Formats: sequence, structure tokens, C-alpha cells
Amino acid sequence: MHKNRIRVGMIGYKFMGKAHSHAYRDLPFFFDTEAVPVQQAVAGRDRIGVEKAAKQLGWASFETDWRRLLERDDIDLIDIVTPNNLHAEIAVAAAEAGKHVVCEKPLAMTVDQARRMAEAVHKAGTVHMFCHNYRFAPAVQFAKKLIDEGRLGRIYHIRGQYLQDWIMDPQFPLVWRQRKEMTGSGALGDIGAHMLDLARFLVGEFADVVGMMETFIKKRPVGEMSGGLNARADGGKMGDVDVDDASAFMARFENGALGVFEATRFAGGNRNGNRFEINGEKGSIRWDLENMNDLEVYLEEDEAGLQGFRTVNCTEEEHPYAGAYWPPGHIIGYEHTFINLFSELMNGIAGGYSPSPNFEDGLRNQMVLEAVEKSAQSGKWIRVSDLKPVSHY
Amino acid sequence: MHKNRIRVGMIGYKFMGKAHSHAYRDLPFFFDTEAVPVQQAVAGRDRIGVEKAAKQLGWASFETDWRRLLERDDIDLIDIVTPNNLHAEIAVAAAEAGKHVVCEKPLAMTVDQARRMAEAVHKAGTVHMFCHNYRFAPAVQFAKKLIDEGRLGRIYHIRGQYLQDWIMDPQFPLVWRQRKEMTGSGALGDIGAHMLDLARFLVGEFADVVGMMETFIKKRPVGEMSGGLNARADGGKMGDVDVDDASAFMARFENGALGVFEATRFAGGNRNGNRFEINGEKGSIRWDLENMNDLEVYLEEDEAGLQGFRTVNCTEEEHPYAGAYWPPGHIIGYEHTFINLFSELMNGIAGGYSPSPNFEDGLRNQMVLEAVEKSAQSGKWIRVSDLKPVSHY
Amino acid sequence: MHKNRIRVGMIGYKFMGKAHSHAYRDLPFFFDTEAVPVQQAVAGRDRIGVEKAAKQLGWASFETDWRRLLERDDIDLIDIVTPNNLHAEIAVAAAEAGKHVVCEKPLAMTVDQARRMAEAVHKAGTVHMFCHNYRFAPAVQFAKKLIDEGRLGRIYHIRGQYLQDWIMDPQFPLVWRQRKEMTGSGALGDIGAHMLDLARFLVGEFADVVGMMETFIKKRPVGEMSGGLNARADGGKMGDVDVDDASAFMARFENGALGVFEATRFAGGNRNGNRFEINGEKGSIRWDLENMNDLEVYLEEDEAGLQGFRTVNCTEEEHPYAGAYWPPGHIIGYEHTFINLFSELMNGIAGGYSPSPNFEDGLRNQMVLEAVEKSAQSGKWIRVSDLKPVSHY
Amino acid sequence: MHKNRIRVGMIGYKFMGKAHSHAYRDLPFFFDTEAVPVQQAVAGRDRIGVEKAAKQLGWASFETDWRRLLERDDIDLIDIVTPNNLHAEIAVAAAEAGKHVVCEKPLAMTVDQARRMAEAVHKAGTVHMFCHNYRFAPAVQFAKKLIDEGRLGRIYHIRGQYLQDWIMDPQFPLVWRQRKEMTGSGALGDIGAHMLDLARFLVGEFADVVGMMETFIKKRPVGEMSGGLNARADGGKMGDVDVDDASAFMARFENGALGVFEATRFAGGNRNGNRFEINGEKGSIRWDLENMNDLEVYLEEDEAGLQGFRTVNCTEEEHPYAGAYWPPGHIIGYEHTFINLFSELMNGIAGGYSPSPNFEDGLRNQMVLEAVEKSAQSGKWIRVSDLKPVSHY
Repeated sequence: MHKNRIRVGMIGYKFMGKAHSHAYRDLPFFFDTEAVPVQQAVAGRDRIGVEKAAKQLGWASFETDWRRLLERDDIDLIDIVTPNNLHAEIAVAAAEAGKHVVCEKPLAMTVDQARRMAEAVHKAGTVHMFCHNYRFAPAVQFAKKLIDEGRLGRIYHIRGQYLQDWIMDPQFPLVWRQRKEMTGSGALGDIGAHMLDLARFLVGEFADVVGMMETFIKKRPVGEMSGGLNARADGGKMGDVDVDDASAFMARFENGALGVFEATRFAGGNRNGNRFEINGEKGSIRWDLENMNDLEVYLEEDEAGLQGFRTVNCTEEEHPYAGAYWPPGHIIGYEHTFINLFSELMNGIAGGYSPSPNFEDGLRNQMVLEAVEKSAQSGKWIRVSDLKPVSHY
Repeated sequence: MHKNRIRVGMIGYKFMGKAHSHAYRDLPFFFDTEAVPVQQAVAGRDRIGVEKAAKQLGWASFETDWRRLLERDDIDLIDIVTPNNLHAEIAVAAAEAGKHVVCEKPLAMTVDQARRMAEAVHKAGTVHMFCHNYRFAPAVQFAKKLIDEGRLGRIYHIRGQYLQDWIMDPQFPLVWRQRKEMTGSGALGDIGAHMLDLARFLVGEFADVVGMMETFIKKRPVGEMSGGLNARADGGKMGDVDVDDASAFMARFENGALGVFEATRFAGGNRNGNRFEINGEKGSIRWDLENMNDLEVYLEEDEAGLQGFRTVNCTEEEHPYAGAYWPPGHIIGYEHTFINLFSELMNGIAGGYSPSPNFEDGLRNQMVLEAVEKSAQSGKWIRVSDLKPVSHY
Repeated sequence: MHKNRIRVGMIGYKFMGKAHSHAYRDLPFFFDTEAVPVQQAVAGRDRIGVEKAAKQLGWASFETDWRRLLERDDIDLIDIVTPNNLHAEIAVAAAEAGKHVVCEKPLAMTVDQARRMAEAVHKAGTVHMFCHNYRFAPAVQFAKKLIDEGRLGRIYHIRGQYLQDWIMDPQFPLVWRQRKEMTGSGALGDIGAHMLDLARFLVGEFADVVGMMETFIKKRPVGEMSGGLNARADGGKMGDVDVDDASAFMARFENGALGVFEATRFAGGNRNGNRFEINGEKGSIRWDLENMNDLEVYLEEDEAGLQGFRTVNCTEEEHPYAGAYWPPGHIIGYEHTFINLFSELMNGIAGGYSPSPNFEDGLRNQMVLEAVEKSAQSGKWIRVSDLKPVSHY
Repeated sequence: MHKNRIRVGMIGYKFMGKAHSHAYRDLPFFFDTEAVPVQQAVAGRDRIGVEKAAKQLGWASFETDWRRLLERDDIDLIDIVTPNNLHAEIAVAAAEAGKHVVCEKPLAMTVDQARRMAEAVHKAGTVHMFCHNYRFAPAVQFAKKLIDEGRLGRIYHIRGQYLQDWIMDPQFPLVWRQRKEMTGSGALGDIGAHMLDLARFLVGEFADVVGMMETFIKKRPVGEMSGGLNARADGGKMGDVDVDDASAFMARFENGALGVFEATRFAGGNRNGNRFEINGEKGSIRWDLENMNDLEVYLEEDEAGLQGFRTVNCTEEEHPYAGAYWPPGHIIGYEHTFINLFSELMNGIAGGYSPSPNFEDGLRNQMVLEAVEKSAQSGKWIRVSDLKPVSHY
């Protein structure tokens, strides 16, 4: 039986480009999806850089102008891993070119951009997703299953923290991830976005938010990302940081739950601490990305005297996606979240639907992000639906 | 050498009464303080109850009217462990009677009450403290020492959570701890107060806050506390819960730090989870009351590759108060926080000063609590100093 | 209603003397036992030391010759907290004097001594216990309950480690706890004894053992204990260490379970790490003294996908002894294990029986300790019952 | 620049076959090794099975007779992932055919087999390794580095536990992993082998051992492995289990360290708990496979009051192999240990040397395994060097 081959054209090739490339490579090894990805072409402006990346990351060809990918007949899916300021332009053009589109998070820099992107894929009728990969940790998917089955009952609380420390050194250069024109926001859009996506996935839609944003280090030497989350300064020149080093917000959800969230790059000792706890009337769960295979589960129904959080190592058949990998107790890592996500994307393309999180999720997430920003500026609670664009979404 | 004997008269005798009585009993065993407490008399309205308590808790005599304690010449110190609505009246009267005063937290139900209490002890010139006992866990005191010595550098963040679950059952009775007229507020004043006191102790003064409060279960069967945090319903009668089941607030501190706080009695599986993390430019610390002997410490100065949170079991000579107890690795518990606090109180009375947390701290804490409440009502950020009373405080 | 008053005479007053004194002091506060202890007299050879200790630790009188306590009519119970070499002589004499006896662990230095002690109390008909206090942590008692109820099914494994590090420094003085004539053995009898007592309590009787013992630091400056587990050197004189710094042994139990045990004072970073894990056909449990309020419980009966170790904070009504203290989540510490043990002792004296662990347990434990020592010398497995003395035990 | 292409022929294709295939696939993506593997051919007896596996696992061709691989000119490296009883025959033949050889662990079923294998590769002059993959977790490699640099000082202790629970159900079928003729031993050779390899890697050579082995469930329904660690029964037929369900041993190392080890498949709740702790005069380390990215490190040199185990998340540049993957805090999993191991194998083949663990390590490991078995039979300590074969090794 011949499988659908989905020929991918990826735009950008740094940290996320590596993660995506690897996921395309490994996907067919672990999953028997309805369609399989082919690493057809990668695009980037710098010829030497993109040629080298194509070789290292396993792409069959490369382009120095992303628009070329849209023109090529041998590309089915455009994968956008550029800085955030290019997401909207590329995604809209890709949809108009009839391509399926997958985009890194945050989907856009503004609600307006996100709306245009969602409208474009809707109009084009192509498949779309965006990459909140942490949803696809087996432990998170299992949490979702428990909540959907009512095992936690009515949800009272979610508290989420995404804590990093990679730019605490005042000499860490000013890179695109800290420049508003390229990224939209700082900690909020980069890591806070993951947190709120998990909240929407697990708890439901946000109703109202109140936010706070802060830039602790206001000037930094200008520089560039040099792979992963490393960077190098270009010289002695200093520049203004115009995005947030840290953001926090409180929320009320439409279902009555309360949320408290914090995203910061100034939490020393937390390399990549994406943690949440959810409390419901019948139970609670806890998760931490740095120990991502475990889900801590408390069930009120447990007999008196034997109640307590269980550490469930989500590497068993019962845990979504885990069966594709190794026996129980043999853990998987960061990169597998992308493989799991792409398995859904391939099935979606084969089946003609856009799995969640798709561009509609991206739009809704963007509304929350923008509401937090507006609240941080105005000092007031913001009703998220007040940002609802006039389109059909 | 004859020690000062401080004759205590305690008003109230339930959960906190037990904790205080025990601390008075054990204090001289562990500490060589400048003055020693004597359990002279306990007061309570119910003759049978107070007589039984006097015997069980080791008090030499009892009274059924607390005013009698103030009249007695053989009482030096009044200890207030009543419901919150009586704190102000008793404390002011005690000060006016020339007694030293120690009071359970929260100091009062309003800023105005707290101000009157602070003015009364100031005018009387007697010694005063109030019982934020968690400050006195050796791990917390050691955290304070690290911060004061600059080991964490400039503080960027504090996040605190006080999570409990003892009233999640909708059938749990409506007791004084959930009735506004007796308690002032619910989770906020009861456990949130501990959290903000720790924040003031460790980080500094609050500048601005924005809060959110929620009552998930709005009607409960009427009942009474029956010891510890247990309760029994009186009959079938239902009553309105008019205090918060859960509260959260964000804050900016005067020194520029950001705070995110949450206090709730609806976090299933968290029996008494009082946790905080503080991030500074040079290091971070984490603490959790359920594992109260440990302090997790991250130091940026540690060599590359060997950085990580250390679990410091604060049972060594270097850890404040720990030397009074057992060898390293032999842990202490909840009750010892009161013993440590009372050791300071005794030294304070002997030395004629009021150790922190005293009524001035109580007033400042009350201002934050009230600012959170006002913010929750108005939906706006509140400047804490705007609540500053006109007195000399 | 008048309670039995049990007048205690305690011999010795250092680390264990402090722990016992405190337990006598606190017992009536927390427990409503059938008899209550009275701190009647303490004995020690050094007049200045014992007088000071009597005052600090709350004893009504003191003696400089322990034999005086046996002659006194106003002493009902002799409590032995001396170095190990005196246990047998004192206990036998106390029994012969018609006193109840409680003795610190290990009960004796040899099986022969232990047998004579057991015979003496048996002949005298007085009540006897010895102080394996860790049995009385609520989490350990709860573990016992789970096992007795069959919740773990047939037991396959126990692995126990008692890891300390207080004598790793080669300059730490040679004190009585490291001199064979006073202590019998080193890590084995001091902390290994706790471990094997827990194993006998929870799993059952030992059948065969094979052991290994080692002294890493063979010479140390001569010195003395100075409180807790601290010590000071007397001068420049060096002495030979003739007991084990570390011991390990494997065992087969009579019920077929396997045991693996290790006791060492050379495990850096482990201040007082007394840990065990037990695996049965239906479940497993884990405990660690440094976090003594928690019991980790795994139940095979839990539904697939939700299996994992639960962290049960044993501070609830369902957990033995916990109800006497504070509400759930308010932890207790090291000292409470003695209070719990003494509550059983008081009930035993009032009821005319000797609660476990009593001298018969002490004898059985001593047989295991001696079997390990013999095995370490001979390099062979030893059948524990081969050491069984010819008496009625 | 053209890389050496190392054409691999793999024999066997079940659990380990999947792990190896994936590692070959991913190696060039992450590492810039001196040679790159090519998945040339896979061999297995069952045509349908091996053909399907070739496709799923990415092999260019397949054979139904492993000897064919040895004859083929287009195979450079033979990879043995068969049941243990075939290791020796294949490895010797492969070496004689001039092939490089990599073999799953345990290297052999007996010391004699291991010796012949080591002699064969030595004589052939081809490169050889065997697959103790857990050595290649970044945290374990970092532990090795700390020890080699003297950061722990003289080593006093290692305690290792490899705890699993996958055959606790008496209905779990009798598969090759529990049949002596195919596997040699049970828990000992399968998982105990990993433990002792880590001990040799980190601590040094074993001098003497004393062991204990047990089979708890003596009859099981006959069946077959069906992928991962799953199995299915063939029918109602029962068979005798003639290997150990659990093994434990104590050891003295040549450098004076003591070791205590336990390997069992009957430790409920431990899916894959491979844990060790090492204590040295200057520090201690702890590791657990279920949380394999973390190394806990205690350093005696840390200042008083701030001593404690640090949790080092070994995902940084300083941690061996970690730099090849993702930014700090983005964890890797089980499969990456094979990728790291194969990176060494490729460099070894390119450079003409056999990286550790190679067949000499396999022989030494086998001597320890056999010494444990002999000790379990004889009830006596065994000197490992007494098993030393007469060959040049």
C-alpha cells in the first residue's frame, strides 16, 4: 500500500528548524501515519548558511528566497520557523499558493495578523497547525484525557509557570527574541504562549485577564542567536530591550476556573521549567517539563489514609503516543513532542482536517496574549472576547 | 541565677491554643531565653470547655471572662488565640491594662483595627508580637540570612502559594473561619496572610497589588470547629459563605521585585502546601512547608556544569534555631515554629523591645490584605501606601 | 479520675537522655495514656554534669551512682541511656530490684548479654521495652498496618539503607561510639540495628545472613562526645578504631523474602538517611527518615495508566499516632517517635504487658547483629537460629 | 570531504533491534563523527518478520541466515541483537570474517564464551564494542568525569539497584529472557549486568563478591516476546523458570570500595529503576535512569550550612554528549544513550581502536557475573580474579 508523501518546504533553519527537521526524519520510524513527510526543501536568506543546514538537517534542496518554495510544484506543506514578524506574511502567501501550512508559535505578533492568517487558510481550504508541541507530551495528553473523562470534576484552579534563566546575564546579547519588531513580545509570547496554550487545551477558554510585564535589564549589547538558545554579541554596541523579561497574569475562565500564570527568563536555576498544577473538585494534577514523562495525579476518590499525589511515569500503552516508543520506564525527551505533533499533522493532511492546535487556536491564543499586554498597559482587567475580530472566527 | 518568669494569660484554647500552650511548655527545655513563660491562666466563655482545656493544655487556672485576665496582677502577657473579630478589642484592652500582648494572625480584620492596636501598644509601651510562625522555620530564617547577606543579589521574583483542601467537600460546615463577621476574610486572611508576611520578611515592602477573590461553594450547612481543622454540622440549616474560598494577587514591591501569590482552600491533595520560590540576580531559593526542614538553594556562582538547586536540610548549627534541637538530619516539625517565635518574644520582653513580626508588621500586612480586597472589588491595581493610616505608623 | 503515675529514674543524660526527657515531658500533653510518667530522678557519675542536666532536662532529683536509683522506693521505671557496655548490668540489676525497664538500642553488646537481660525481666515479671523509636513514626506504623492487612501481599524484597556522614572527617575524634569495649560494634549496632529492627517489624524474622564490615579510617585522635553527635578531641593522642565504619548484609527471611541492607557513617551528604523500600506481590512502599512524615505507596490494584507511587503525608486521623498532634499537613519530627513509643510503654505498664519492641525483640535483633558479625569474620552465610541461646526464648 | 561509510549488518530485530536501528538513523543528524553508519542489511530466521522489520526499521536489505551477512562484501560491521545464546557463535564468526563487531549485553553466557569472543576480535584485529548504553547518558558520563578528576576523592561506597516489575504477574509467559539455555541468567545477566558495568566504569575493578539468587515464580505458561518487553502465551502449557527473578550481591573493589547491588524484576512500581549512589571522601553522587538527565551531586567542599545534594540537569555544554542535542533544560531520553554509544563506535572504527566498553570489558563483566552465580551456589565469597581465563586477557 502506497502512502501519501507530503513534501515539506521549511522556511528558517535555526533552533526550531533543527527540532522540526528531526521530527520529520524520525516520524516514519515510530508512527504508522496516513501520510509521511518528505524533507523536500529548506529556505533561508544566507546561501552558505542554508546550504549547510540543508545538508546537516537532511533536506533534499534549498532556496534563498522563501517565495520560491511557494512557487514550486513539488512542495505540499510550508513549515514556518522564522522569527515571529514573518509568520503572517508567509502563512498568508502559502495559503494563497494552495499549500498546507504549519507555523511555529506564537502564531502572530497581533490579533489582527492572526485573524488574517486564520482567514487565509480558511479561504484556501488547506490544512493548518501551529506548534504548541508541549501539548503532545504523553503526560499532558494523558492529563487531557483524565480531565475530559471528568476524573478531576469541575476545575477550580490552574497555576502555570514557565521559568527560564538564559538571559539573566546583562551581557547576554540583544537578539531577535528580545526585539519587539521581530518577536512581538518577550517572555510572554515566547514561553507564556506555551503556558496559556496548555491552559486552553486543558481547562478551556479564557474570559478575563489582568497582566503585568517587566523589563529588568533595559540595555544590552547588540548580537545574534548562534544556535539553540545561545547568542554572540556583534561588538560593543548597546541597544534597548523593548520587550518583557517577565510577565504574569491572572485569569478567569469561561467555566469559572481561576488561573494564575507567570512567564519569566529571570528565574535563576530554572533552565526550562514549564510547570502547571490543576485542581478540580475530584482531583488534581501536576506536570513539569523538566521531568516531562511524569504526571502527578491526586484522586479524591482514593481511600482515606491512602490519598496522595501519585507519580505516574507516562511511558505505558495507556498513555497517548507512548506506545510508539519504548517499554514502560524508558523515557522520551523534548524532541518527541514534535514527532507526536507531526503525526497528527500528517493524519490531518491525509484526512483533510486541521488538528488542534490550528490557526483558530492560534487566533484565540493571540487574543489572550494581546489582552494581557493591553491589561499590563492599562492596569485594568480585560475581557478577552472584547478583542474578538469581526471575522467569522 | 533567677530568670524572669513571664506569666501568660491565654484567651481561646482551640487549635492555636494547643499550639501556643505546647510552645510555652517546651520552650525552656530547648532554649535558654532571658525570660521563661509560665502558663498562668486560660480564658474561655464555656466553663466546661475551658476547665478541660486548662487541664489538658497545662494552665494553672482558668477564667470564663477574658477581661478577668486583664485585671489579674499575676498576668504579664496576654496571648490572643480567639477568632479574628475579637483581636482588636482584646489587644487594645490588654495594652491599656499594661500587659504585653501576643496575638494570632491576621492581626485584625481591617487596617483601622490594626492601626488602633498598634497605637495602643505603642502608647502603653508594652511588648507586642503577632504569630506569623512560619517565619521561624529554620529554613526560612536561613533564607532570610542568605538574602540579607546579598547571596541572591537583587531580587527579581517571588511566587508564593498557600494551597489547602480542607473545605472542598460542599458538606464541610460553615464555621467561623468562613464567616466574614468573625474572620474578616477567608483563604486570604487565614493563609494568604502567612504568604504575604513571608514575602514582606524576605523580599520587602509591597508597593502595588491587584487581586482576585472567589467563593466556589456559596452555601454550606451551619456548624462549628471541633478541634484542629475539623468541624461538625449543627443540623440541617444552611448558611451563606461570605468569604473567599480562594484568592490570588500580583504585586510590585518597592524594590522592583514582582510577586505572584495564590491562597486557596480548594487545591485537592495539598493538605498544607505553603510554598514559595524567590529568584534573585545571583541565586534562587525554594521552600515548602510540607517539607519544612529543607531549603532548596541555587547559586549562580557555582561552577558551570555543576549548577543546580541544592537540597539543604536545615538541621545544622549554621541554621537559625536548629542547634537548639537535635543533630543534623533529625528533623523538627510544625510546632517548633511556635517555640522559636516564643523564644524571641521572651527575649523581647526581657529586653524591652518588640521583635518582628510585631503589631507594626501586623498593620503593614493588614494594609496589603485590605489592598487586595479593595482591588478584587474594584478590578484595579491598588497602591498599598494609599491605605496608610494617618497615625505615626 | 486519678491516673497511675510512673516515676522514672533515667541513667545517662546525653543525646538520648535529652530525647527521652523531652518525651516524658510532652507525653501527657498529647496522649491520654493509662499511666503518666514523672521525671523523678536522673543518674550520672559526674556530679556537676548530672546536676546541670537534671535542671535543664526537668528531673526532680539526681544521683551520682545509678545503683541508688534501684534502691529508691520512689522509682518505678528505670530508663537506660548509657553507652552500650552498661546496658546489661543495669538492666539485670533493675529487674532484680523489681523495676520496670526501658533501654536504648542496641539492647546489648552480645547475644549472651541480651539473653540474660531477657531472662531477668522475665523472671522479675516487670515490664520491659527497648527504644527502636523509628518504628513509631506514623508512616512506619501505617506501613505495618498495610502489610498486616495484606495490602502488599506476599513480601518479596526489603532493601534498607541507614546512611550517615558524621565521622567522615579523619580528625573526628575517637569517641565511645567507635570503641568496641563500650559500643560492641560501630555503624552496625548503632544504625544498622534500627534498620534490621524495622525489617523484623515489617517483614518478619531473619533466617540467614551474610555480612561485610569495614573500617575506613583506622586511627583517630582520642576524644569525647560533647552533645548530640558532636565531639571534641582531648589532645594529640591517637587511638585505634576497632569497630566498623560501614557494614552491609544480605538476608533471607523465614517467609522467603530477600533483604539487602547497608549501614554506614561514610555516605557524604546523608546526614541521617534511614531509608527502606519493601516490594510485595500486590504493592510496594518506600520510606526515608529525612522526610519521615511521608510514606510512598504503590498499589498494583490501581487502574492501568494510573499506577505510580503515591506520596502519602501521614499526618491524618488514619495514620497511627498522627491524630494526637496537628491537622493534616502539619508535620511532626524526630522527637515525636519517642513520645509515641513512651505512650505504648505507659499503657504497657498500666496494663501489665511489655509492648513490642521489648527485650525479646532485643534478643532476636541481637542474634541478627551477631550473625552478621560472625559472617563478616568467617566469610560465610550464618543461620540466625544457630545463635539461639538455650534459654526459654 | 567524503566521510567513511560504515555498512552495518544487524542480526535480530526485536526490542534492541529497534533501539539500534533508530540510533543508526539519528546518529548523523546529531553528531559529526569520523564515520557514518549505513543501514545495509538485517538478518532474521523468519522471512515475513525480517522483511517487515527491514522496512519499518529502515534497512536496505534483509537475509534469513545471519551467515549470509558475514559473506557479503558490502557489510563492514556486524551488530548482534539476538538472544544471548547466539552472541558467542556469531561474534567469533564475524571476527573471523574480518568484520567489526558490536554486540548487545551481556556479552556472553559464560566466561569461557566471553574469552573466546575477546580472543577472536583480538586475533582478527577488528573493532569491537558491546552495548552497555547506560554509560552513555550524559549524567553518567559527567559522573565519570567528576570521579576521574578526583572531585569525589577516594571512593568508599557504591550501592546500585536495578528494579523492574514486568514479570511479577505469575501469568506473564515464560520467554527467552527467562530460559537459561537462551539467556544464561535472568535478572542478573539482563539488568544486573548494566549495574555492574556502571560500577566498573565509575568505581573500578571488582575484587571479591558474594551473591544471592532467587526464583519467586517457578512455573509459568510458555510464550514468546512480542515487542518491547511485552509477551504472549502460546497456549496452556506450563514451563519451568530456570533463571533468577532476583539477584543481589555484595562486593569489595580492588581500590577498597564496598559495593552493594540488587537486580530484580519483582519490585512493583519500579518500571525501569536503575539507580546508584556513590560516596567518596569529598563528595557523593546519585543517579536514577527513570530521571536520567539529572545527576545529584554532593560536594563536601561546599560551605557549611549550604551543603546538600544538587540536582544537576545534565543538558548543558559541560555535560558530555548533551551539546549535540537541545538547549539546557530540554531533556533527552532512553534512545539517545544508543546514539551516543554509536558515535563512539563510529569514531573507533574510523580510528582503528575499540572504545570502552569493548569485548575486554565484556569479559571482565562476565567474570563478575559468573563469580556472583558461583557464590550464590556455593554460599561463599568468590575472588573474581580466580575466574580469570588463561588467555592473554
